[in-house]
Amino acid sequence: MANSPSGDSTIDRLVRILETFSTDRTVQTAAEIGRRAGLPSSTAHRIVDDLVEAGVLERDEHHRIRLGMRLWELALRGSRALRLRQAALPFMERVQARLREHTQLAVLEQDEALFLERLSSPTSGANITRVAGRLPLHASSSGLVLLAYADADVVERVFAQPLQAVSAETITDAAVLRRTLADVRRRGHVVAPGSIERVSTGVAVPVRDERGRVIAALSVVLPRDSGAEAAAIEELTAASAGITRALSRRRD
Amino acid sequence: MANSPSGDSTIDRLVRILETFSTDRTVQTAAEIGRRAGLPSSTAHRIVDDLVEAGVLERDEHHRIRLGMRLWELALRGSRALRLRQAALPFMERVQARLREHTQLAVLEQDEALFLERLSSPTSGANITRVAGRLPLHASSSGLVLLAYADADVVERVFAQPLQAVSAETITDAAVLRRTLADVRRRGHVVAPGSIERVSTGVAVPVRDERGRVIAALSVVLPRDSGAEAAAIEELTAASAGITRALSRRRD
Repeated sequence: MANSPSGDSTIDRLVRILETFSTDRTVQTAAEIGRRAGLPSSTAHRIVDDLVEAGVLERDEHHRIRLGMRLWELALRGSRALRLRQAALPFMERVQARLREHTQLAVLEQDEALFLERLSSPTSGANITRVAGRLPLHASSSGLVLLAYADADVVERVFAQPLQAVSAETITDAAVLRRTLADVRRRGHVVAPGSIERVSTGVAVPVRDERGRVIAALSVVLPRDSGAEAAAIEELTAASAGITRALSRRRD
Repeated sequence: MANSPSGDSTIDRLVRILETFSTDRTVQTAAEIGRRAGLPSSTAHRIVDDLVEAGVLERDEHHRIRLGMRLWELALRGSRALRLRQAALPFMERVQARLREHTQLAVLEQDEALFLERLSSPTSGANITRVAGRLPLHASSSGLVLLAYADADVVERVFAQPLQAVSAETITDAAVLRRTLADVRRRGHVVAPGSIERVSTGVAVPVRDERGRVIAALSVVLPRDSGAEAAAIEELTAASAGITRALSRRRD
Protein backbone atom coordinates (compact mmCIF):
# COMPACT_ATOMS: atom_id res chain seq x y z
CA MET A 1 0.00 0.00 0.00
CA ALA A 2 1.00 3.60 -0.56
CA ASN A 3 4.49 2.73 -1.61
CA SER A 4 6.96 5.49 -2.38
CA PRO A 5 9.35 5.20 -5.36
CA SER A 6 11.92 3.72 -2.93
CA GLY A 7 9.45 0.99 -1.95
CA ASP A 8 8.78 2.20 1.60
CA SER A 9 5.16 2.15 2.66
CA THR A 10 3.63 5.06 4.56
CA ILE A 11 3.42 2.76 7.59
CA ASP A 12 7.18 2.05 7.44
CA ARG A 13 7.93 5.75 7.21
CA LEU A 14 5.56 6.50 10.09
CA VAL A 15 7.30 3.94 12.31
CA ARG A 16 10.72 5.29 11.34
CA ILE A 17 9.57 8.80 12.26
CA LEU A 18 8.24 7.64 15.65
CA GLU A 19 11.52 5.78 16.25
CA THR A 20 13.48 9.05 16.08
CA PHE A 21 11.89 10.08 19.39
CA SER A 22 13.29 8.75 22.67
CA THR A 23 13.39 9.49 26.38
CA ASP A 24 16.30 11.84 25.75
CA ARG A 25 14.93 13.31 22.54
CA THR A 26 11.34 14.43 23.00
CA VAL A 27 11.39 17.49 20.70
CA GLN A 28 12.85 17.80 17.19
CA THR A 29 12.52 19.94 14.08
CA ALA A 30 10.93 18.37 11.00
CA ALA A 31 14.35 18.54 9.31
CA GLU A 32 16.00 16.61 12.17
CA ILE A 33 13.25 13.99 12.05
CA GLY A 34 13.77 13.57 8.30
CA ARG A 35 17.53 13.20 8.66
CA ARG A 36 17.27 10.70 11.53
CA ALA A 37 14.51 8.71 9.79
CA GLY A 38 16.48 8.65 6.53
CA LEU A 39 13.75 10.47 4.60
CA PRO A 40 14.18 13.21 1.98
CA SER A 41 13.46 16.62 3.52
CA SER A 42 10.36 17.34 1.42
CA THR A 43 8.92 13.89 2.22
CA ALA A 44 9.63 14.36 5.92
CA HIS A 45 7.96 17.77 6.01
CA ARG A 46 4.89 16.47 4.20
CA ILE A 47 4.45 13.41 6.43
CA VAL A 48 5.10 15.45 9.59
CA ASP A 49 2.40 17.92 8.50
CA ASP A 50 -0.05 15.05 7.96
CA LEU A 51 0.84 13.52 11.34
CA VAL A 52 0.38 16.87 13.10
CA GLU A 53 -2.99 17.23 11.38
CA ALA A 54 -4.00 13.77 12.72
CA GLY A 55 -2.73 14.52 16.25
CA VAL A 56 -0.08 11.77 16.09
CA LEU A 57 2.55 14.53 16.37
CA GLU A 58 2.20 18.04 17.82
CA ARG A 59 3.94 21.38 17.25
CA ASP A 60 5.11 23.24 20.35
CA GLU A 61 5.20 27.03 20.67
CA HIS A 62 8.59 27.10 18.89
CA HIS A 63 7.20 25.09 15.96
CA ARG A 64 9.25 22.08 16.96
CA ILE A 65 7.69 18.63 16.78
CA ARG A 66 6.84 16.31 19.66
CA LEU A 67 4.76 13.15 20.04
CA GLY A 68 1.05 13.88 20.30
CA MET A 69 -1.11 13.24 23.35
CA ARG A 70 -3.60 11.76 20.88
CA LEU A 71 -1.03 9.12 19.90
CA TRP A 72 -0.44 8.34 23.59
CA GLU A 73 -4.19 7.93 24.07
CA LEU A 74 -4.71 5.74 20.99
CA ALA A 75 -1.72 3.53 21.81
CA LEU A 76 -2.73 3.00 25.44
CA ARG A 77 -6.50 2.95 25.55
CA GLY A 78 -7.03 -0.58 24.28
CA SER A 79 -3.60 -2.06 24.93
CA ARG A 80 -2.81 -5.13 26.97
CA ALA A 81 0.19 -3.15 28.30
CA LEU A 82 -2.28 -0.84 30.07
CA ARG A 83 -4.42 -3.70 31.37
CA LEU A 84 -1.43 -5.61 32.72
CA ARG A 85 0.09 -2.49 34.21
CA GLN A 86 -3.17 -1.45 35.91
CA ALA A 87 -3.54 -4.92 37.41
CA ALA A 88 0.10 -4.88 38.57
CA LEU A 89 0.36 -1.35 39.95
CA PRO A 90 -1.18 -1.84 43.43
CA PHE A 91 1.05 -4.88 44.00
CA MET A 92 4.11 -3.07 42.70
CA GLU A 93 3.35 -0.21 45.08
CA ARG A 94 3.27 -2.63 47.99
CA VAL A 95 6.64 -4.17 46.99
CA GLN A 96 8.11 -0.71 46.57
CA ALA A 97 6.73 0.50 49.91
CA ARG A 98 8.15 -2.51 51.79
CA LEU A 99 11.56 -2.83 50.14
CA ARG A 100 12.07 0.87 49.25
CA GLU A 101 13.88 -0.14 46.05
CA HIS A 102 13.18 0.21 42.31
CA THR A 103 10.34 -2.10 41.29
CA GLN A 104 9.80 -2.96 37.62
CA LEU A 105 7.43 -4.80 35.33
CA ALA A 106 8.75 -6.05 31.98
CA VAL A 107 7.42 -8.04 29.02
CA LEU A 108 9.13 -9.90 26.20
CA GLU A 109 9.10 -7.81 23.02
CA GLN A 110 11.17 -8.47 19.89
CA ASP A 111 13.66 -10.63 21.83
CA GLU A 112 14.29 -7.98 24.50
CA ALA A 113 12.84 -7.07 27.89
CA LEU A 114 10.54 -4.05 27.46
CA PHE A 115 9.77 -2.23 30.72
CA LEU A 116 6.10 -1.33 31.19
CA GLU A 117 6.45 0.26 34.60
CA ARG A 118 9.05 1.37 37.12
CA LEU A 119 8.37 2.62 40.62
CA SER A 120 11.19 4.27 42.52
CA SER A 121 11.62 6.12 45.77
CA PRO A 122 14.06 8.99 46.21
CA THR A 123 16.26 6.71 48.34
CA SER A 124 16.50 3.92 45.73
CA GLY A 125 19.98 3.29 44.28
CA ALA A 126 21.28 3.18 40.70
CA ASN A 127 18.93 1.85 38.02
CA ILE A 128 19.34 1.89 34.28
CA THR A 129 15.77 0.86 33.40
CA ARG A 130 13.14 3.29 32.20
CA VAL A 131 9.47 2.98 31.36
CA ALA A 132 9.27 2.09 27.63
CA GLY A 133 12.99 1.28 27.74
CA ARG A 134 14.56 -2.09 26.93
CA LEU A 135 17.33 -4.38 28.17
CA PRO A 136 18.86 -7.53 26.65
CA LEU A 137 17.22 -10.77 27.79
CA HIS A 138 20.44 -12.50 28.92
CA ALA A 139 21.77 -9.50 30.82
CA SER A 140 18.91 -8.38 33.08
CA SER A 141 17.11 -10.26 35.85
CA SER A 142 13.76 -9.50 34.16
CA GLY A 143 15.15 -10.71 30.86
CA LEU A 144 16.46 -13.96 32.35
CA VAL A 145 13.01 -14.74 33.72
CA LEU A 146 11.32 -13.89 30.40
CA LEU A 147 13.87 -15.98 28.49
CA ALA A 148 13.51 -18.94 30.88
CA TYR A 149 9.82 -19.24 29.97
CA ALA A 150 10.00 -18.01 26.35
CA ASP A 151 8.96 -19.98 23.27
CA ALA A 152 11.64 -22.12 21.64
CA ASP A 153 12.05 -19.77 18.66
CA VAL A 154 12.95 -16.84 20.93
CA VAL A 155 15.48 -18.95 22.85
CA GLU A 156 16.96 -20.18 19.58
CA ARG A 157 17.42 -16.64 18.25
CA VAL A 158 19.07 -15.46 21.50
CA PHE A 159 21.54 -18.36 21.48
CA ALA A 160 22.25 -17.88 17.76
CA GLN A 161 23.80 -14.46 18.51
CA PRO A 162 26.94 -13.71 20.54
CA LEU A 163 25.91 -12.93 24.16
CA GLN A 164 27.08 -9.33 24.53
CA ALA A 165 28.46 -8.21 27.89
CA VAL A 166 26.70 -5.21 29.44
CA SER A 167 28.93 -5.39 32.53
CA ALA A 168 31.94 -7.52 33.49
CA GLU A 169 29.51 -9.94 35.19
CA THR A 170 26.95 -10.37 32.41
CA ILE A 171 26.52 -14.05 31.48
CA THR A 172 28.21 -14.38 28.07
CA ASP A 173 28.79 -18.16 28.10
CA ALA A 174 25.98 -20.11 26.43
CA ALA A 175 26.37 -23.15 28.73
CA VAL A 176 26.19 -20.95 31.85
CA LEU A 177 23.13 -19.19 30.45
CA ARG A 178 21.39 -22.52 29.80
CA ARG A 179 22.08 -23.64 33.37
CA THR A 180 20.85 -20.29 34.71
CA LEU A 181 17.59 -20.56 32.74
CA ALA A 182 17.03 -24.11 34.04
CA ASP A 183 17.64 -22.77 37.57
CA VAL A 184 15.05 -20.01 37.04
CA ARG A 185 12.46 -22.57 35.94
CA ARG A 186 13.22 -24.83 38.92
CA ARG A 187 13.29 -22.07 41.57
CA GLY A 188 10.74 -19.64 40.13
CA HIS A 189 13.05 -16.66 40.55
CA VAL A 190 16.48 -15.31 39.61
CA VAL A 191 19.07 -13.34 41.58
CA ALA A 192 21.47 -11.61 39.17
CA PRO A 193 24.25 -9.67 40.89
CA GLY A 194 26.16 -7.18 38.76
CA SER A 195 24.83 -8.38 35.40
CA ILE A 196 23.84 -4.84 34.38
CA GLU A 197 25.69 -2.62 36.84
CA ARG A 198 28.41 -3.71 39.23
CA VAL A 199 26.76 -1.96 42.20
CA SER A 200 23.32 -3.59 41.82
CA THR A 201 21.64 -6.97 42.12
CA GLY A 202 18.50 -7.68 40.12
CA VAL A 203 15.90 -10.05 41.58
CA ALA A 204 13.03 -11.16 39.34
CA VAL A 205 10.08 -13.56 39.30
CA PRO A 206 7.66 -14.59 36.53
CA VAL A 207 4.12 -13.17 36.35
CA ARG A 208 1.49 -15.56 34.98
CA ASP A 209 -1.85 -14.83 33.36
CA GLU A 210 -5.17 -16.48 34.24
CA ARG A 211 -4.15 -19.55 32.22
CA GLY A 212 -0.72 -20.00 33.80
CA ARG A 213 1.32 -18.62 30.92
CA VAL A 214 4.26 -16.39 31.85
CA ILE A 215 3.43 -12.96 30.43
CA ALA A 216 5.80 -10.66 32.34
CA ALA A 217 8.63 -10.42 34.83
CA LEU A 218 8.40 -8.52 38.10
CA SER A 219 11.73 -7.35 39.52
CA VAL A 220 13.51 -5.18 42.03
CA VAL A 221 16.97 -3.68 41.82
CA LEU A 222 18.82 -3.93 45.15
CA PRO A 223 22.13 -2.38 46.12
CA ARG A 224 24.78 -5.11 45.78
CA ASP A 225 25.24 -7.15 48.96
CA SER A 226 22.23 -5.55 50.66
CA GLY A 227 21.32 -8.93 52.12
CA ALA A 228 17.71 -8.22 51.06
CA GLU A 229 17.55 -10.90 48.34
CA ALA A 230 15.45 -13.39 50.33
CA ALA A 231 12.96 -10.72 51.40
CA ALA A 232 12.78 -9.50 47.81
CA ILE A 233 12.01 -12.99 46.47
CA GLU A 234 9.25 -13.39 49.05
CA GLU A 235 7.67 -9.98 48.31
CA LEU A 236 7.92 -10.43 44.54
CA THR A 237 6.44 -13.93 44.62
CA ALA A 238 3.46 -12.75 46.69
CA ALA A 239 2.97 -9.72 44.41
CA SER A 240 3.15 -11.89 41.28
CA ALA A 241 0.42 -14.17 42.62
CA GLY A 242 -1.66 -11.08 43.41
CA ILE A 243 -1.29 -9.77 39.86
CA THR A 244 -2.47 -13.11 38.44
CA ARG A 245 -5.54 -12.97 40.70
CA ALA A 246 -6.21 -9.36 39.64
CA LEU A 247 -5.91 -10.28 35.95
CA SER A 248 -8.52 -12.98 36.30
CA ARG A 249 -10.86 -10.56 38.06
CA ARG A 250 -10.78 -7.20 36.35
CA ARG A 251 -10.89 -5.77 32.87
CA ASP A 252 -9.50 -2.25 33.38
CA MET B 1 -0.01 11.82 0.46
CA ALA B 2 -1.00 8.29 -0.28
CA ASN B 3 -4.61 9.18 -0.88
CA SER B 4 -7.12 6.46 -1.62
CA PRO B 5 -9.80 6.98 -4.27
CA SER B 6 -12.09 8.23 -1.47
CA GLY B 7 -9.54 10.90 -0.54
CA ASP B 8 -8.50 9.40 2.82
CA SER B 9 -4.79 9.39 3.50
CA THR B 10 -3.08 6.34 4.95
CA ILE B 11 -2.55 8.32 8.15
CA ASP B 12 -6.30 9.04 8.44
CA ARG B 13 -7.10 5.38 7.96
CA LEU B 14 -4.44 4.36 10.49
CA VAL B 15 -5.94 6.70 13.12
CA ARG B 16 -9.45 5.43 12.37
CA ILE B 17 -8.22 1.86 12.84
CA LEU B 18 -6.55 2.70 16.17
CA GLU B 19 -9.74 4.49 17.26
CA THR B 20 -11.71 1.24 17.00
CA PHE B 21 -9.80 -0.11 20.02
CA SER B 22 -10.85 0.91 23.53
CA THR B 23 -10.57 -0.18 27.14
CA ASP B 24 -13.55 -2.46 26.62
CA ARG B 25 -12.52 -3.62 23.14
CA THR B 26 -8.91 -4.77 23.12
CA VAL B 27 -9.21 -7.59 20.58
CA GLN B 28 -11.02 -7.58 17.21
CA THR B 29 -11.02 -9.42 13.90
CA ALA B 30 -9.75 -7.56 10.84
CA ALA B 31 -13.31 -7.58 9.49
CA GLU B 32 -14.67 -5.94 12.67
CA ILE B 33 -11.93 -3.30 12.52
CA GLY B 34 -12.82 -2.54 8.91
CA ARG B 35 -16.51 -2.23 9.70
CA ARG B 36 -15.96 0.00 12.72
CA ALA B 37 -13.40 2.17 10.91
CA GLY B 38 -15.67 2.52 7.89
CA LEU B 39 -13.18 0.89 5.52
CA PRO B 40 -13.88 -1.59 2.72
CA SER B 41 -13.03 -5.13 3.85
CA SER B 42 -10.16 -5.64 1.39
CA THR B 43 -8.62 -2.28 2.35
CA ALA B 44 -8.96 -3.09 6.05
CA HIS B 45 -7.31 -6.49 5.65
CA ARG B 46 -4.42 -5.00 3.65
CA ILE B 47 -3.75 -2.15 6.11
CA VAL B 48 -4.09 -4.48 9.12
CA ASP B 49 -1.53 -6.84 7.52
CA ASP B 50 0.88 -3.91 7.01
CA LEU B 51 0.34 -2.71 10.59
CA VAL B 52 0.96 -6.21 11.98
CA GLU B 53 4.15 -6.39 9.89
CA ALA B 54 5.29 -3.08 11.42
CA GLY B 55 4.40 -4.15 15.00
CA VAL B 56 1.75 -1.42 15.35
CA LEU B 57 -0.85 -4.20 15.65
CA GLU B 58 -0.38 -7.83 16.72
CA ARG B 59 -2.18 -11.11 16.03
CA ASP B 60 -3.02 -13.26 19.03
CA GLU B 61 -3.10 -17.07 18.99
CA HIS B 62 -6.65 -16.99 17.59
CA HIS B 63 -5.58 -14.69 14.73
CA ARG B 64 -7.49 -11.81 16.22
CA ILE B 65 -5.93 -8.34 16.19
CA ARG B 66 -4.80 -6.31 19.18
CA LEU B 67 -2.67 -3.18 19.64
CA GLY B 68 1.06 -3.91 19.44
CA MET B 69 3.51 -3.57 22.32
CA ARG B 70 5.75 -1.84 19.75
CA LEU B 71 3.10 0.87 19.30
CA TRP B 72 2.89 1.30 23.07
CA GLU B 73 6.67 1.67 23.22
CA LEU B 74 6.89 4.16 20.33
CA ALA B 75 4.01 6.26 21.65
CA LEU B 76 5.38 6.46 25.19
CA ARG B 77 9.15 6.52 24.92
CA GLY B 78 9.59 10.15 23.94
CA SER B 79 6.25 11.55 25.08
CA ARG B 80 5.66 14.40 27.46
CA ALA B 81 2.81 12.29 28.90
CA LEU B 82 5.44 9.85 30.19
CA ARG B 83 7.72 12.58 31.52
CA LEU B 84 4.87 14.35 33.34
CA ARG B 85 3.51 11.09 34.68
CA GLN B 86 6.92 9.91 35.94
CA ALA B 87 7.45 13.24 37.71
CA ALA B 88 3.96 13.07 39.21
CA LEU B 89 3.82 9.43 40.27
CA PRO B 90 5.71 9.60 43.61
CA PHE B 91 3.56 12.56 44.70
CA MET B 92 0.38 10.85 43.55
CA GLU B 93 1.37 7.79 45.56
CA ARG B 94 1.76 9.93 48.67
CA VAL B 95 -1.68 11.54 48.16
CA GLN B 96 -3.19 8.12 47.57
CA ALA B 97 -1.50 6.61 50.63
CA ARG B 98 -2.69 9.43 52.92
CA LEU B 99 -6.25 9.87 51.66
CA ARG B 100 -6.87 6.25 50.50
CA GLU B 101 -8.98 7.56 47.61
CA HIS B 102 -8.68 7.55 43.79
CA THR B 103 -5.97 9.98 42.71
CA GLN B 104 -5.81 11.18 39.10
CA LEU B 105 -3.67 13.24 36.76
CA ALA B 106 -5.34 14.77 33.70
CA VAL B 107 -4.31 17.04 30.82
CA LEU B 108 -6.30 19.15 28.37
CA GLU B 109 -6.58 17.36 25.03
CA GLN B 110 -8.96 18.30 22.21
CA ASP B 111 -11.26 20.23 24.58
CA GLU B 112 -11.60 17.35 27.03
CA ALA B 113 -9.82 16.14 30.17
CA LEU B 114 -7.58 13.20 29.21
CA PHE B 115 -6.49 11.08 32.19
CA LEU B 116 -2.78 10.17 32.20
CA GLU B 117 -2.79 8.27 35.46
CA ARG B 118 -5.11 6.92 38.11
CA LEU B 119 -4.08 5.34 41.39
CA SER B 120 -6.69 3.49 43.40
CA SER B 121 -6.79 1.35 46.48
CA PRO B 122 -9.16 -1.57 46.91
CA THR B 123 -11.13 0.48 49.45
CA SER B 124 -11.65 3.50 47.16
CA GLY B 125 -15.24 4.25 46.15
CA ALA B 126 -16.90 4.70 42.75
CA ASN B 127 -14.84 6.29 39.98
CA ILE B 128 -15.64 6.60 36.32
CA THR B 129 -12.18 7.74 35.17
CA ARG B 130 -9.69 5.42 33.48
CA VAL B 131 -6.13 5.83 32.30
CA ALA B 132 -6.30 7.09 28.69
CA GLY B 133 -10.00 7.84 29.25
CA ARG B 134 -11.65 11.25 28.90
CA LEU B 135 -14.26 13.40 30.65
CA PRO B 136 -15.93 16.67 29.59
CA LEU B 137 -14.18 19.81 30.85
CA HIS B 138 -17.25 21.41 32.45
CA ALA B 139 -18.39 18.24 34.22
CA SER B 140 -15.31 16.92 36.04
CA SER B 141 -13.24 18.54 38.77
CA SER B 142 -10.08 17.98 36.69
CA GLY B 143 -11.79 19.49 33.67
CA LEU B 144 -12.95 22.57 35.58
CA VAL B 145 -9.37 23.24 36.66
CA LEU B 146 -8.04 22.71 33.11
CA LEU B 147 -10.76 24.96 31.68
CA ALA B 148 -10.15 27.68 34.28
CA TYR B 149 -6.58 28.09 33.03
CA ALA B 150 -7.13 27.20 29.35
CA ASP B 151 -6.39 29.43 26.36
CA ALA B 152 -9.23 31.70 25.23
CA ASP B 153 -9.95 29.63 22.11
CA VAL B 154 -10.63 26.49 24.18
CA VAL B 155 -12.94 28.41 26.54
CA GLU B 156 -14.75 29.91 23.56
CA ARG B 157 -15.34 26.52 21.96
CA VAL B 158 -16.66 25.04 25.24
CA PHE B 159 -19.11 27.90 25.74
CA ALA B 160 -20.19 27.76 22.08
CA GLN B 161 -21.67 24.27 22.68
CA PRO B 162 -24.57 23.30 24.95
CA LEU B 163 -23.19 22.21 28.36
CA GLN B 164 -24.31 18.59 28.51
CA ALA B 165 -25.36 17.16 31.87
CA VAL B 166 -23.44 14.05 32.96
CA SER B 167 -25.36 13.90 36.26
CA ALA B 168 -28.23 15.92 37.73
CA GLU B 169 -25.66 18.21 39.37
CA THR B 170 -23.38 18.91 36.39
CA ILE B 171 -23.04 22.65 35.76
CA THR B 172 -25.07 23.30 32.60
CA ASP B 173 -25.65 27.04 33.03
CA ALA B 174 -23.01 29.17 31.27
CA ALA B 175 -23.16 31.97 33.87
CA VAL B 176 -22.68 29.50 36.73
CA LEU B 177 -19.78 27.89 34.87
CA ARG B 178 -18.10 31.30 34.35
CA ARG B 179 -18.40 32.07 38.06
CA THR B 180 -17.06 28.61 38.96
CA LEU B 181 -14.01 29.09 36.70
CA ALA B 182 -13.31 32.50 38.25
CA ASP B 183 -13.55 30.85 41.69
CA VAL B 184 -11.05 28.17 40.64
CA ARG B 185 -8.56 30.82 39.52
CA ARG B 186 -9.02 32.80 42.76
CA ARG B 187 -8.82 29.81 45.14
CA GLY B 188 -6.45 27.55 43.22
CA HIS B 189 -8.71 24.52 43.62
CA VAL B 190 -12.20 23.24 42.93
CA VAL B 191 -14.59 21.08 44.94
CA ALA B 192 -17.22 19.57 42.64
CA PRO B 193 -19.81 17.46 44.46
CA GLY B 194 -21.91 15.16 42.29
CA SER B 195 -20.96 16.67 38.95
CA ILE B 196 -20.08 13.24 37.50
CA GLU B 197 -21.68 10.79 39.93
CA ARG B 198 -24.14 11.61 42.69
CA VAL B 199 -22.19 9.63 45.30
CA SER B 200 -18.81 11.30 44.71
CA THR B 201 -17.10 14.66 45.15
CA GLY B 202 -14.18 15.58 42.91
CA VAL B 203 -11.45 17.83 44.32
CA ALA B 204 -8.82 19.15 41.90
CA VAL B 205 -5.89 21.58 41.78
CA PRO B 206 -3.76 22.87 38.88
CA VAL B 207 -0.26 21.49 38.21
CA ARG B 208 2.22 24.02 36.79
CA ASP B 209 5.37 23.48 34.78
CA GLU B 210 8.76 25.06 35.47
CA ARG B 211 7.55 28.29 33.87
CA GLY B 212 4.31 28.57 35.82
CA ARG B 213 1.97 27.45 33.05
CA VAL B 214 -0.86 25.11 34.07
CA ILE B 215 -0.18 21.83 32.26
CA ALA B 216 -2.33 19.36 34.18
CA ALA B 217 -4.92 18.87 36.91
CA LEU B 218 -4.36 16.67 39.95
CA SER B 219 -7.52 15.35 41.58
CA VAL B 220 -9.03 12.95 44.06
CA VAL B 221 -12.50 11.45 44.07
CA LEU B 222 -13.99 11.37 47.58
CA PRO B 223 -17.17 9.71 48.74
CA ARG B 224 -19.84 12.43 48.91
CA ASP B 225 -19.96 14.17 52.31
CA SER B 226 -16.80 12.44 53.54
CA GLY B 227 -15.75 15.68 55.19
CA ALA B 228 -12.28 15.12 53.72
CA GLU B 229 -12.37 18.04 51.25
CA ALA B 230 -10.08 20.36 53.24
CA ALA B 231 -7.50 17.62 53.81
CA ALA B 232 -7.69 16.72 50.11
CA ILE B 233 -7.07 20.32 49.04
CA GLU B 234 -4.06 20.51 51.34
CA GLU B 235 -2.56 17.20 50.14
CA LEU B 236 -3.19 17.99 46.46
CA THR B 237 -1.71 21.48 46.71
CA ALA B 238 1.46 20.14 48.33
CA ALA B 239 1.71 17.34 45.76
CA SER B 240 1.21 19.77 42.88
CA ALA B 241 4.08 21.95 44.13
CA GLY B 242 6.22 18.81 44.41
CA ILE B 243 5.47 17.84 40.81
CA THR B 244 6.50 21.30 39.59
CA ARG B 245 9.79 20.98 41.49
CA ALA B 246 10.35 17.49 40.06
CA LEU B 247 9.66 18.72 36.51
CA SER B 248 12.32 21.41 36.82
CA ARG B 249 14.81 18.84 38.09
CA ARG B 250 14.53 15.62 36.15
CA ARG B 251 14.27 14.50 32.57
CA ASP B 252 12.90 10.99 32.93
